[in-house]
Amino acid sequence: MKKIVVQKFGGTSVADTDRIKKVAQTVIHEKELGNDVIVVVSAMGHTTDNLLKLAGEITSNPSPREMDALLSTGECVSIALLTMAIQSFGYKAVSLNAAQVGIYTENIHTKARIINIKTETLKKYLAEDNIIVIAGFQGMTSNGDITTLGRGGSDTSAVAIAATVQAERCDIYTDVNGVYTADPRIVPKATKLEEISYDEMLELSSVGANVMHPRAVETGKQHKLPIRVRSSFNINDIGTVIHGVRDMELQKPVTGVATDLSQVRIVACDVPDKPGTAAQLFGALAKEHISVDMIIQSYARKVENTNDIAFTIDKTDLPKAVSVLEKLRKEVNLGNVHIDNDIAKVSIIGAGMINNTGVASCMFKTLADLDINIKMISTSEIKISCLVDVNDSTKAVQALHDAFNLAGDEVAEVHGTLPD
Amino acid sequence: MKKIVVQKFGGTSVADTDRIKKVAQTVIHEKELGNDVIVVVSAMGHTTDNLLKLAGEITSNPSPREMDALLSTGECVSIALLTMAIQSFGYKAVSLNAAQVGIYTENIHTKARIINIKTETLKKYLAEDNIIVIAGFQGMTSNGDITTLGRGGSDTSAVAIAATVQAERCDIYTDVNGVYTADPRIVPKATKLEEISYDEMLELSSVGANVMHPRAVETGKQHKLPIRVRSSFNINDIGTVIHGVRDMELQKPVTGVATDLSQVRIVACDVPDKPGTAAQLFGALAKEHISVDMIIQSYARKVENTNDIAFTIDKTDLPKAVSVLEKLRKEVNLGNVHIDNDIAKVSIIGAGMINNTGVASCMFKTLADLDINIKMISTSEIKISCLVDVNDSTKAVQALHDAFNLAGDEVAEVHGTLPD
Repeated sequence: MKKIVVQKFGGTSVADTDRIKKVAQTVIHEKELGNDVIVVVSAMGHTTDNLLKLAGEITSNPSPREMDALLSTGECVSIALLTMAIQSFGYKAVSLNAAQVGIYTENIHTKARIINIKTETLKKYLAEDNIIVIAGFQGMTSNGDITTLGRGGSDTSAVAIAATVQAERCDIYTDVNGVYTADPRIVPKATKLEEISYDEMLELSSVGANVMHPRAVETGKQHKLPIRVRSSFNINDIGTVIHGVRDMELQKPVTGVATDLSQVRIVACDVPDKPGTAAQLFGALAKEHISVDMIIQSYARKVENTNDIAFTIDKTDLPKAVSVLEKLRKEVNLGNVHIDNDIAKVSIIGAGMINNTGVASCMFKTLADLDINIKMISTSEIKISCLVDVNDSTKAVQALHDAFNLAGDEVAEVHGTLPD
Repeated sequence: MKKIVVQKFGGTSVADTDRIKKVAQTVIHEKELGNDVIVVVSAMGHTTDNLLKLAGEITSNPSPREMDALLSTGECVSIALLTMAIQSFGYKAVSLNAAQVGIYTENIHTKARIINIKTETLKKYLAEDNIIVIAGFQGMTSNGDITTLGRGGSDTSAVAIAATVQAERCDIYTDVNGVYTADPRIVPKATKLEEISYDEMLELSSVGANVMHPRAVETGKQHKLPIRVRSSFNINDIGTVIHGVRDMELQKPVTGVATDLSQVRIVACDVPDKPGTAAQLFGALAKEHISVDMIIQSYARKVENTNDIAFTIDKTDLPKAVSVLEKLRKEVNLGNVHIDNDIAKVSIIGAGMINNTGVASCMFKTLADLDINIKMISTSEIKISCLVDVNDSTKAVQALHDAFNLAGDEVAEVHGTLPD
């Protein structure tokens, strides 16, 4: 049996037909190494934006089922074009959309999770020596409706397919050449990591290191699938390997620093201090599929027997959250709701911090020395996050990168914009 | 049981989001009349051209399977947008691509014929009071490959779906308000016909009256399904009804005049005059799915024991035909091959000509009076076609329209360009 390698190319990698031809050559390079190759691609460059614009001209409130039907067409265009490009170089190739593969998801539109991937069709085409090109970001429900996977969807498609076919590894081709100790555009001295553990990558990506979506990393972790984050522009650079526990984790307590500008803070004031109120609040948000990140319940007690509850959510969920809170206002007798858009979450990540005391205090002292006010704090075993004013985020990241001695000799290579 | 009406809208009718909203209103108008409505749509305006351009940038010789996968995305965009538009007016609607419906075709790419259409999904959604919006032009093979139906595909989808669900009728919305005695852009005095028989419409559309593709008419005829050709711009004009034998057919011997500029004439010279040669020639063309229209075998015998064979095919098939003839040249000892691009086929159509003598001679005399040379002639029971020089076609059509007294009082309404 040949080894299978799954490759994923994002929207910027297939933005025009010239780039699609270059991607075809990268695919063929892997095939020529003697592997079976399955490729997962996103929609071309601005396709999704153009489709969203058309939908917006029709209605401000499109049905999720039809949005998924609409948006899924973008990937269907790129798989056909990439397959033609691979064939034009003399290789056997075949395009498959999610329905043709049998990528089954739950019956939730615009952010469905993958339940099951059929292997019959994939095995058949691989046995016939085809390179298989699959539409990322999309799936189908058991009754044949088209779904999309939401943010990080194509990465998740690729990793899930790789896990299903027991691939040797999954290569995520992007416009950076690996995972860095910090965003090189913010910290010019940032170093590329040769390897990183799933858990560290999960924390890094969950705090805005936009290299890979945490869902995809989580899927890789579950199936112990090695993932390489590597550059579309340099085929010889193997990038950063994401895998299990890494050898170097004890060397430095902190592996990377990251900023997340995608969140908004909501403060619900004067929430009645009785059992079940918080559960009611966060239960209502969960019902609308709104993920809550940091939560703090204060004991300020401006009003007797009440608390303030502050929490952060993704900015895109704000309209939904506001309507949930409006509905709750009467039911649970909420006070005012404050919304704070100008925040940044600055995080340090490292599997080594478990065994190193003083990491948290070093972080807080570094920020204090810069007169940066910490609005909220959250911690996990391998991450500490501080919510700060958005205007303080760049200097915070730079100072933390220095404080934890993350700078290296290698110069960062950054091309173009961030991948999808 | 409610009556089902199937409506088809071409690419110009859904060219932008404003027009899509207008189509939604036309659909809702039919629904409000108390009928169940199934809508079949083409790709928006220039979508197909844009996709063809992208494919052309990748390769000059794309695989038919991938071309079908690529082109089918156009209709998938328009069904989602039209469904959103219908929903935005407060009506239940659902989009379905060919795979979701189960429109099965033969396993031939770029010009597949429909074999079978599943009704389970359609019945389920109609029972839930949905307006169903289906992607025209596409189908799937039994092993899940995407196919397209070729020219006239969306009309064929609509009529085939209407026949399958035993619809009351199929309305083909287009940018002309019916079928005319001649193309009103060529003959300003052309009259709209209130009704026309399937056979007459078949002959009319097969000779270039670009209102409907003959495949769709043929499908309607097989299932005795009434078809209305009507205007997207005037909801109150019921257009022309295509149905069985019409009452008025004995009134005039000729119903309409049409020109077909899509053909090319090929003359294979000095073909050996022995049994089986013609069968070999046309068999080889049929094997490549090239339809041959007019055929004449001359007895000029410039070379002893040979004939010239002249025939016409669609211009798009010319490259394939040339390569077939090249291969045959040695096998059957063909002489030179002449290609004549500058031809037009001018036809008169009418079920009444069966019972009227002198129709053919009137046609030939009319052309002779104008000094128009007739290169080939073909006849059916209800049609006579003459191949003439392309520069003579307009005056030929105008003179024939006069000669057979087809002018009426109604002024032709023509909007925009020809439908797809």
